[in-house]
Amino acid sequence: MLSKNQIKYINSLQQKKFRQEYQSFVVEGAKSVVELLSSDFELESLYVTEDFYKETKPLLDKQPLRAEIVGQAELEKAGTFSSNNAALAVAKMKSNQELLLNDTEYALVLDEIRDPGNLGTIIRIADWYGIQKIICSEGTVDLYNPKVISSTMGSFTRVSLFYTDLVKYLKGQQKPIYGAFLDSENVHTLKFAPSGYIIIGNEANGISEAVGEVVTHKITIPRFGGAESLNAGIATAVICDNLRR
Amino acid sequence: MLSKNQIKYINSLQQKKFRQEYQSFVVEGAKSVVELLSSDFELESLYVTEDFYKETKPLLDKQPLRAEIVGQAELEKAGTFSSNNAALAVAKMKSNQELLLNDTEYALVLDEIRDPGNLGTIIRIADWYGIQKIICSEGTVDLYNPKVISSTMGSFTRVSLFYTDLVKYLKGQQKPIYGAFLDSENVHTLKFAPSGYIIIGNEANGISEAVGEVVTHKITIPRFGGAESLNAGIATAVICDNLRR
Repeated sequence: MLSKNQIKYINSLQQKKFRQEYQSFVVEGAKSVVELLSSDFELESLYVTEDFYKETKPLLDKQPLRAEIVGQAELEKAGTFSSNNAALAVAKMKSNQELLLNDTEYALVLDEIRDPGNLGTIIRIADWYGIQKIICSEGTVDLYNPKVISSTMGSFTRVSLFYTDLVKYLKGQQKPIYGAFLDSENVHTLKFAPSGYIIIGNEANGISEAVGEVVTHKITIPRFGGAESLNAGIATAVICDNLRR
Repeated sequence: MLSKNQIKYINSLQQKKFRQEYQSFVVEGAKSVVELLSSDFELESLYVTEDFYKETKPLLDKQPLRAEIVGQAELEKAGTFSSNNAALAVAKMKSNQELLLNDTEYALVLDEIRDPGNLGTIIRIADWYGIQKIICSEGTVDLYNPKVISSTMGSFTRVSLFYTDLVKYLKGQQKPIYGAFLDSENVHTLKFAPSGYIIIGNEANGISEAVGEVVTHKITIPRFGGAESLNAGIATAVICDNLRR
């Protein structure tokens, strides 16, 4: 049974100011909670339905924290999911630590991605293509927003994000910095360097002028038809696929 | 000035049953309306703000139908956009005509795509990659749904959709039918035939069993990290990019 205060606390974590205050965030849904339980995130509390408890017992038994069995209706009151919610966890946020690349590594660099669904999708794509580091402008939506977490489908456990001033960060790097622009080098024929940065621009405005100035390699996804642009997540996937092939 | 009855009529077209009854649909937003005006869709009515009217005068002057100048607040009452709406058109739906491919053409085949944003994104991707035909299962979300139309960003004017029984339709075709499955042929090394079909499965369940049985070429987007899957729009983009390179 979730108390009124527990529900109130979990609800409050939908807001960034309370997440900052408590340094905690919420993970909802069976798939995401299972991934969380297999990760190095520190758990604060864990609420699961009886069915989830039975199905996931071996994994739950390994946790230092005991899962509390509650009804699905209670989980739906506490979380943001309107249905289909079998598990909810409160976990501790990780600190915003600088990320540096080794000589065979790539990072995505997000220049003001505002939409939580887009950030979640981009994290999932990074995870698919084995990219474990994402550098975010300070205006990029918060990783710990519940919509971001749920749309990563668990990939937030395998990809690290660092929020910083992009220009300052990138100016100190020696590696190639790729950014998508019109009429530049075709990603189908480009030979990517062994490591570097790939900048993804804002949904409406693309790469900002200041960040554009630190790009060392302008690249283009070739177009074969009439659409004017691709959305941020789609462009990320196509560039990553070309990088990895 | 939009009358109460005009607003009521436009609002009603948010629902499929009224679109079916009147054979009409709504296009909102400057970018989409501009694309509509340059297409072969037949216009029923056209409402624009004064600013849009001035900016788009040469294009508006070419239309057989006169644009009515209205306030933005009225457009927002009539349409589904909560802001930023400078134009709204009611256009006639096209009939659901069978689409066949020539010898150098590809079509996407959508097996129960339910989310309007996903269908819109897929149409935009098809348009980017020069794919002009999409075959949809009968349970795929309606093209003329306002969220689908707006998320195509105007690409609905250049891509044709045909809703049909996929198994019946595909069984009669001689061309290769590609579908994404786990552990099949790598799209990075596959040589695509000069023409054929690419099946995109449902968001949650993938390609249905019955449709899977008519697939002639099983393909796989190679994975380099930990994510379990890619979403339908992302998979479409990556497959199309590999097809066109």
